[in-house]
Formats: sequence, C-alpha cells, structure tokens
Amino acid sequence: MKRVYLDHAATTPVDPHVEEAMRPFWGEHFGNAGGLYEEGRRAKEALGQARIKIAKLIGARPDEIIFTSGGTESDNLAVFGVAGAALPGKKSDFFGVLKSDFEDSKASKPHIITAKFEHHAVLHPCQELEKLGFSARGGPAFGWDVTYLEVGEDGIVSPENVKRFLRPETVLVSIMYANNEIGTIQPVAEIGKIIHNHKLETKNDKLVFHTDACQAAGYLDLNVNNLGVDLMTVNGSKIYGPKGVGFLYVRRGVKISPQILGGVQEMGLRAGTEPVALNVGLASAFEIAQGEKEKESARLTVLRDYFIGGLEKKIPKAVLNGHPIKRLPNNINISIPGANGEEMVVRLDANGIACSTGSACTSESSESSHVILALGRSKKLADSSLRLTMGRSTTKGDLDYVLKVFSGIINSYGARN
Amino acid sequence: MKRVYLDHAATTPVDPHVEEAMRPFWGEHFGNAGGLYEEGRRAKEALGQARIKIAKLIGARPDEIIFTSGGTESDNLAVFGVAGAALPGKKSDFFGVLKSDFEDSKASKPHIITAKFEHHAVLHPCQELEKLGFSARGGPAFGWDVTYLEVGEDGIVSPENVKRFLRPETVLVSIMYANNEIGTIQPVAEIGKIIHNHKLETKNDKLVFHTDACQAAGYLDLNVNNLGVDLMTVNGSKIYGPKGVGFLYVRRGVKISPQILGGVQEMGLRAGTEPVALNVGLASAFEIAQGEKEKESARLTVLRDYFIGGLEKKIPKAVLNGHPIKRLPNNINISIPGANGEEMVVRLDANGIACSTGSACTSESSESSHVILALGRSKKLADSSLRLTMGRSTTKGDLDYVLKVFSGIINSYGARN
Repeated sequence: MKRVYLDHAATTPVDPHVEEAMRPFWGEHFGNAGGLYEEGRRAKEALGQARIKIAKLIGARPDEIIFTSGGTESDNLAVFGVAGAALPGKKSDFFGVLKSDFEDSKASKPHIITAKFEHHAVLHPCQELEKLGFSARGGPAFGWDVTYLEVGEDGIVSPENVKRFLRPETVLVSIMYANNEIGTIQPVAEIGKIIHNHKLETKNDKLVFHTDACQAAGYLDLNVNNLGVDLMTVNGSKIYGPKGVGFLYVRRGVKISPQILGGVQEMGLRAGTEPVALNVGLASAFEIAQGEKEKESARLTVLRDYFIGGLEKKIPKAVLNGHPIKRLPNNINISIPGANGEEMVVRLDANGIACSTGSACTSESSESSHVILALGRSKKLADSSLRLTMGRSTTKGDLDYVLKVFSGIINSYGARN
Repeated sequence: MKRVYLDHAATTPVDPHVEEAMRPFWGEHFGNAGGLYEEGRRAKEALGQARIKIAKLIGARPDEIIFTSGGTESDNLAVFGVAGAALPGKKSDFFGVLKSDFEDSKASKPHIITAKFEHHAVLHPCQELEKLGFSARGGPAFGWDVTYLEVGEDGIVSPENVKRFLRPETVLVSIMYANNEIGTIQPVAEIGKIIHNHKLETKNDKLVFHTDACQAAGYLDLNVNNLGVDLMTVNGSKIYGPKGVGFLYVRRGVKISPQILGGVQEMGLRAGTEPVALNVGLASAFEIAQGEKEKESARLTVLRDYFIGGLEKKIPKAVLNGHPIKRLPNNINISIPGANGEEMVVRLDANGIACSTGSACTSESSESSHVILALGRSKKLADSSLRLTMGRSTTKGDLDYVLKVFSGIINSYGARN
C-alpha cells in the first residue's frame, strides 16, 4: 500500500543532497577537529564552513553558532544556560538570594517568562528551575519564578502580555517562533522590539530573548536581527537534515553557561568531539530549507487551505485548532468532537496514512496535549485532536485520498457511537 | 604524500559496514520512533534492536542502555545524574544539607571519588559540583566534597586507595577503564568488588560505580557484571562508529536524574528525538569492535612493543608514560626531554604523520596535560609528551617510517638546542 506521510512536524526524511554532503565525513575526512594535523585541520575547516553557512542565513556571525545534539538540547542550553549565567557569582550574594527565597519575596527572585504552549524542552527546564529543594543536578534549588503566559484562543501569544509581565528581575523570555502542534506563528519580531525597548528603558542588560525556531526553519525568515532575538534554536530533524544535531544561535555579548562540560569545543559552550558529518549535514539541510522556503510555503499554503476547506464540507463538526492563517503552511490541526485522537491515528495508519495526535515527544505518554488545553479547549477536545503536517512530498492527490479515508472513518465513528 | 594516521584515541574513521548499517535510516526509514504509525514503529523497532545488540555485548538488559550524543554527554549524565538523584527530595532536608555546608562539616556532605587523570568530561562536572555559590544551571551550589585520587607513577589507580577514601556519604566512584592519553588499564573489576563489599558492609545502597570505557571499547571485555560497574560510558567516535552518539549503561535499580529535559525518550532519562541512524550505527560499530577485540589486541600489542623497543634504541632519552604492559594495545605515549610536544606534532604532520600531544579535547588550550602531571612528572616533561595511537589501518611499515622520521626530528632538535 502506498503510504501518505503527514507527520513532517515530527520528523522529515534526510534530503539526498544532505546525505551526499555528509558522506565524505564518515570514513574519509574523519579527523577530530581538535587535531593539530592535516586531518584535524580539514575537519576544523569543514566545521567552520558549516558555521559560516548557517550564520549567513540568519544574519549572524560564525562564532554565534553553537552546535548541539538537537532542538531539545538547544532549548535546555538556552534556559539553563541563561539561568546559570544570570546569577551573581559571589558567595555573599548566594546568601542574599537564598534569604529572599525563604522570605518568599517574589520580587527579588530571578524571573523567566515563557508561554503555556511551549515545547516541553523549554517548559521542563523552567519547571526544574522553579523547584524548591534539590535540583536534578545535585545542588539545592531555590525556586526561580516563572510566568507561563496564557495563549490566545487562536494559539498566539500577545506581545502586550509579554510586556505586562516583564520585571526588573526578568532574565529570560522564551517564546517559540511557530508552535509544533498547531503551527501558529508567534509575533516574535514584535516581542523582540518590546524587549529591546524594555532593556533601554530599564537598563536591564541581563534580559535575554530566546525563540525555538525548529518548526519555523523550513518556512519563515530566520534573520536574528529582524526577529530581535538573542538566542534561537534550530534542529536538523525537522528540515530534512539528520537527527541528532541542531544549533543554538547565541548573540555575541549574551552570557550563557555551558551545560555539557569537559572540553573547549563550540566556543567553550558545549563540550564533546564535534560530529563534523552531522554539522555539515545540518548546514546543508538548513541552506536548502531556507532557499526553498518561499516556494514551498506558497505551494503548501494552497494545499493546506484546500484541505481545510474540504474538511469543512466533509466533516462539518471538525474544529480547527489555532489561527486559520497565521500558521505554518504545512500544519493542519483539528479536533473532532466525540472521536479519540489515538484511535484516529491508528485507523488512518491502517489506511496508509501517517499522522499524529500532537508532539511525538509525548506520544507514548497518556497526557492530554498541553498545547490544545492552552487554547482554552476542553480535555475532551484535546484528546480528539489530530495533527497533519505536510512536507515536500505531499501532493493534492494525497490530500484527496486522506479526505476520503478520514471522512469515512469519522462517519463510521458517528454511526457506531 | 601517504598519511600515517596515529591518533585513533582522538577519533577513528567510520567503518564501511557501519556506514552501510546507517544508510537506510537517513532518507528511507526516517520515521520518528515516537510515532504511532508504521514509519514510527519501524524506527522504534530499529532503535530497540540497536539497544538489544549493545546490551547483549555487555551482559546487560536493553532498558539499561541510554543513548546519548557521545562520551562527554554520557560522563556528564553519570556524574550529574547520580548527584541529582542522591539527594533527599524534601524541602526540610534541603535546609539540613545547606546548614551542614555552612558549618563546613565535610563528613555530612555528599561525596564523590574520582581520579586526577580522568577525562575532563568527568572532572569538570565534579568541579562544578564542588562549587559554593551558584551552579552553571541557575541554582545555588553548596559544594559537594570530591576526592581526586592520586594516580601511581605507572598511571594506575590503586583499588586500596579507593577503599581508603570511601565514606558513608560517598554516592559515586568514577574511575575510567583505560586512560585516553596514556592508555593505562585500570583495575575496574577489583574496584567493583571493593565497592560491592563496602555496600554490603555499610548498607550504603546509594553508592554507584561509574567507568568511562570509551577508549577500552575496542580492546577490552566490557561485561558490566564482570566489571561490577553500575554505569558505563561508551561512544561511537573511538570505535569506528559515527561521532555524535554514545551510550550510558545504567544498571536497573540505579537512580539517576535526567539532565536534558523535555521528552519521554530513553526511559525518561534523556529527552530528544532519537537519532535512529546514529544509534544503529553505534550498535553496529560496537558489535564489530567487540568482535575483533582479541585479534586486534594481539596484533597491536606486537606492533606497540615493537615500536617502543625501536624507540628505546633510536631515542634513548625518550620516557614512556604509563605502565609498559598494563596499557591499551594501541597506545604509545612518550615524553622527550627538551622537546616541545606541539612542535613535534607539527613537524611529524609535515612528514605525513598524524598524532597528538594528548587529549584532542584540550588541544586548543595551552594547559599542560593533567594526565602526565598526575603521574608525578614535571610540567616540562608533560609539555614534551606525544601520544601515538594505532588502529586497524596501522602496519609495521607505518611504524618503521615513523621511527625513522621521528628520530630524525629529535636528532635535529638535539643538534639545534
């Protein structure tokens, strides 16, 4: 049976050009980029070229690109790294901050702003920082203060809301560029401006703005100056690059503390032998994705709206999750009242269609989607949600087939229940 | 010019069989192992098979294999993970431990034993835990107590010494299986027995034994039960597998806290989309390396001793660093009094020979080798050290060539100075 793969937000196949770009660096040019000899220099050169390629595409400088093992690690590095660098280093201050904690004086605690529908790779590190007791790393934790912004019904974070919650103690704002489940595009540039102005007004030069751009990287402009971001997460897995590699853009002058220790690699911000093949592959994938983004966005927007239109006709009770237009061109996320998301996935799979109930990262857990809940939808609607994410291989014929199969499933569902 | 690559301890080329094993998982079977559909199940199945393959080779169970991005991350996960899991979770205990810290009562602080010549991927996390003030992760740090064991002149840690420093508060002992610079093989199984007995005697069931086996994986038996280890680090980069992937063996029942947060992958101990191609590649490389270890060890031991013998004749002032026999079959590490390590590397490179002054992870920094210093050697001798590490491609002819070139360089050195 022909397969129709509609889970490109979970992961994408590696582009043949990317595979080709990686090939020489497995067995032939395999040197350790730290080596002082020819094989090492060649590796270092390739690594440097990969860094330059990525930097150019986002309006950055090569030394602002920190390679990591993927989006999750980049997000962790952003949150923990900013938190670690934000605090005073003196023992005397240590007592002061602890004291303020025990007195429960929120105003003097370091503070983070993020949104309820962020990826868990941002939310879980924030929750870890909120803990009071011991940290996951073997030290005491004093409970950072984190504001989890509400998200509008349309799945969009209000810049005004970010502004309202900024405090003198805020050291990090982390708002994703496009949501991984519902694809809604956030007003990152507007938030960037608000933060920029806040910093000028309050002289809070510690405040850092991070965006997780993993889902956006194939479709949107990622120029860090246009966006006004200080940190930006991108990974290979979602842009037809290899899994197991990503980067964190770190604006020069922004201080973050390394989280994986034990070597001088990546400007001292991430230790470990550099996986040159993967880094070269990521740069190649990112170049292709950014090069094709306008054409591919235009093509998929038509397909997306065609599918949503068809759905409205064939399954009138279907509810679109997230803003109908301010969303990634490849994302369709719907709830079908009365249906069960997982069951739909299984039945669609039996008909050759691959899609998901939401984030693949939580698909094995039985929690309701925190993203759909953040829109103010009921748990029932959250549990009846389905995410279809298109990609380079998706055709109109695929969507016609999905519409036919899907409406059949839902109608039989209706008849049964 | 023909190149003679003698830096296999820094990294190895990917075995063609490994490249072949990875290939289907780039563009064809690219699914996210978290997906509930065919492509996802196939990825999950491949991931599971990789886990089974590795587990069998070390006498473990599949759910004891935690894939990571490499040796450095595995070591960090071992140290921070054990530290994070060892502490009481209650807020009330938090005050107790802090109080004990401020009173500087070492006896009640959690304690780690490691050795002075461990890889920085172990040492730096230990140093981070020792800090008093703030941690790199944005919380207070209360200063763990770490014992850095002396190393014998022969580069071997004494099991008796480990025993002597064990305390009721010791929660982690981390001793590498074979040193990355001098190749000396540590009595891991003996240390394992001591720890086992100590746990029985003192009922300290929190005590965990970790070994970094990255350098050993191609040459030694890695059965975790024979070794008596609870945690073991292995990576792909040193065993003809891909860079950017490794694993941490975690014995069932041993508690470690995850360090990269945001997903349920890897038994909840390491978040992020699983890089199936890399994991499959690592399993394949590990299988080949473990399968060839006896044959390859025998072959390289002969070559190693041939080279050392030749060196004694041609450069009598050369000093071998580390035990002459209790060392990896592929490792030759020498100091040449009066010479400069980096200069020798550069001059050998100009003659087609790739080798290193020590760990590639610190090659860009100008620090003296902490490993050579740990043997009790002078800074001068440390700065005149050279590491030659052989591999599958190394032949007797290569070594003859190196001996000839090297003695020429050293003799011209002598004439010049």
